[in-house]
Amino acid sequence: MKDLDQYMKMIKPAEWGISEKVHKRLDSLTKPVGSLGRLESLVVQSAAVQGSEDPSCEKKVIFTLAADHGVAHEGVSAYPQTVTAQMVSNFLSGGAGVNVLARHTGCDVIVVDMGVAEDIALEGCVDRKIDYGTKNFTKEPAMTREQAVRSIVAGIELALETDFDILGTGEMGIGNTTPSSAIACAITGREVHELTGRGTGVDDHGLSKKIRAIRTGLERNRPDPGDPIDVLAKVGGFEIGGIAGLIIGSALKRRLAVVDGFISTAGALIAQELHPGLADYFVISHLSAEKGHDLLTEYMKKKPLLDLGMRLGEGTGAALAIGLIQAALHLYYEMATFEKAGVESKNAPDS
Amino acid sequence: MKDLDQYMKMIKPAEWGISEKVHKRLDSLTKPVGSLGRLESLVVQSAAVQGSEDPSCEKKVIFTLAADHGVAHEGVSAYPQTVTAQMVSNFLSGGAGVNVLARHTGCDVIVVDMGVAEDIALEGCVDRKIDYGTKNFTKEPAMTREQAVRSIVAGIELALETDFDILGTGEMGIGNTTPSSAIACAITGREVHELTGRGTGVDDHGLSKKIRAIRTGLERNRPDPGDPIDVLAKVGGFEIGGIAGLIIGSALKRRLAVVDGFISTAGALIAQELHPGLADYFVISHLSAEKGHDLLTEYMKKKPLLDLGMRLGEGTGAALAIGLIQAALHLYYEMATFEKAGVESKNAPDS
Repeated sequence: MKDLDQYMKMIKPAEWGISEKVHKRLDSLTKPVGSLGRLESLVVQSAAVQGSEDPSCEKKVIFTLAADHGVAHEGVSAYPQTVTAQMVSNFLSGGAGVNVLARHTGCDVIVVDMGVAEDIALEGCVDRKIDYGTKNFTKEPAMTREQAVRSIVAGIELALETDFDILGTGEMGIGNTTPSSAIACAITGREVHELTGRGTGVDDHGLSKKIRAIRTGLERNRPDPGDPIDVLAKVGGFEIGGIAGLIIGSALKRRLAVVDGFISTAGALIAQELHPGLADYFVISHLSAEKGHDLLTEYMKKKPLLDLGMRLGEGTGAALAIGLIQAALHLYYEMATFEKAGVESKNAPDS
Repeated sequence: MKDLDQYMKMIKPAEWGISEKVHKRLDSLTKPVGSLGRLESLVVQSAAVQGSEDPSCEKKVIFTLAADHGVAHEGVSAYPQTVTAQMVSNFLSGGAGVNVLARHTGCDVIVVDMGVAEDIALEGCVDRKIDYGTKNFTKEPAMTREQAVRSIVAGIELALETDFDILGTGEMGIGNTTPSSAIACAITGREVHELTGRGTGVDDHGLSKKIRAIRTGLERNRPDPGDPIDVLAKVGGFEIGGIAGLIIGSALKRRLAVVDGFISTAGALIAQELHPGLADYFVISHLSAEKGHDLLTEYMKKKPLLDLGMRLGEGTGAALAIGLIQAALHLYYEMATFEKAGVESKNAPDS
């Protein structure tokens, strides 16, 4: 077990030099050059990440990290906090949205307790509990700096200990759009109302309580925008730190990470701020319906793959996007070349 | 075998009355209300189309219709016309993009000769040849009115004779973005340059030849914007008529049709203009990178499901979208309810 600094120093740049070879192979396939659009970029990125002209995408895994949030007591969610633990049970019995979509695209789901407010004594749940929920950040920092580092390292080690070709992030935690918006505001410097939405579906009154809680949390704790770990500690969550860690761990294994929705993107933002080179190691699966996800992904210079108005989290968007990435690699490996299929290639220019 | 008028009279409205029941079931699942976004709409549309609270999506088929175009002789494509027949052979041996994506999402591919310029003597190719390619519409109408009707009826009967729960459209035909743009201009009244792109990848010179060919075709043949069959006959193509027919046939079978990209959308436009009620029976799979597809789908009041910068045709976008629709139905059938999973539902408002 290494400390966070040691892990961060092990991050290597993605091997974009490989893209010329990959493009050449893509261009030999029976299709107009570039006509598979974003799917071709996904093949190139997979190759650059894996440092191989033949990237693999067979072993697919989604990590669904669960944790609770002290700020939930400010009435920022439409659901009671007990739902976090109840949903962990639902994940383990295979009945949640992420389970269905993971089965659909052939992913395993690994459920992790990063900090649920109660003990989870259920078989199959991986225990990485940092604490029984964060503190209420309207009154004090959500966690200590040491806990923030531990949550990231837990994510890194989850990735390092697991066998996968592609990793999807996911989460569950009643109230966790609130710390996600707070992190996004702290780092991007945008106004709270621009990056704060209705989460699971709070009404206008709930939304104004949520905005007020975030403003209070930022004013009281004054997270340092240049220090992502300080931001995570002051206004974040254990599962969000864990997601940042999953992305770092995935990069260390030279595997592509697929970031789910709004909350996972807050985790990816922490990772990207810690090390800009990590941006090459992940894609954002979908544009969430949650307000501010568009501004946040623009800030990160990332274009989400899908835009289906989803806002469920858990890893549901990641599961769908992993299906698309696998489709892209199937095209790369299975399409016939012009030569093999006996198809004439392009006319000479101007013919 | 009926005539087109008889078929058109058999079209019934989709059963939107069923949506209340379907929404009630969706809202009982362990997720915030509406949080699956567009996936929920796809479930509701599938139910309305099938007239059943339990729509099925097991048997999936993509029709790839091939035909040639006289206007190809105006130098409007980056590829020679012989490629149409060569690609038919590629489809039949399973090496084309649509084959790979159809395998990925579990669809069958049915390859149909609607009017390739040469004889296709290959096992597995369905023969519905209307003629050996259309005429060059810069000099005369692309086809007779009788041929236009026959191409649509051929598509209807292909759908009626085939067993499927969901149908994807696809096509292959060197030069066929040109008649597609011409149809779109004739019906929407937009300028040719707004709805004409580079197809398989023509250069600036090729693009200006293409725009000139479409302008000449529209001026010489004067298609009647209020008569979609006249538009198809004057500036269309056999596979485009066939796609319009597939959509009509799919509606007659009360099954959802998934429209591929730019060319398939031109076919869907013909269908929708023939009978506005057909719009309820299809979705547009993806926003093509081809110029004008955005304006065309807006005109049709349809929001494409995916936006991946693809422009390959064949049914590749339809194959991916069918995967999403099946995912939506898996969620509907497989997710646990709040009651079953023992998860508390939403707080009372304002709690």
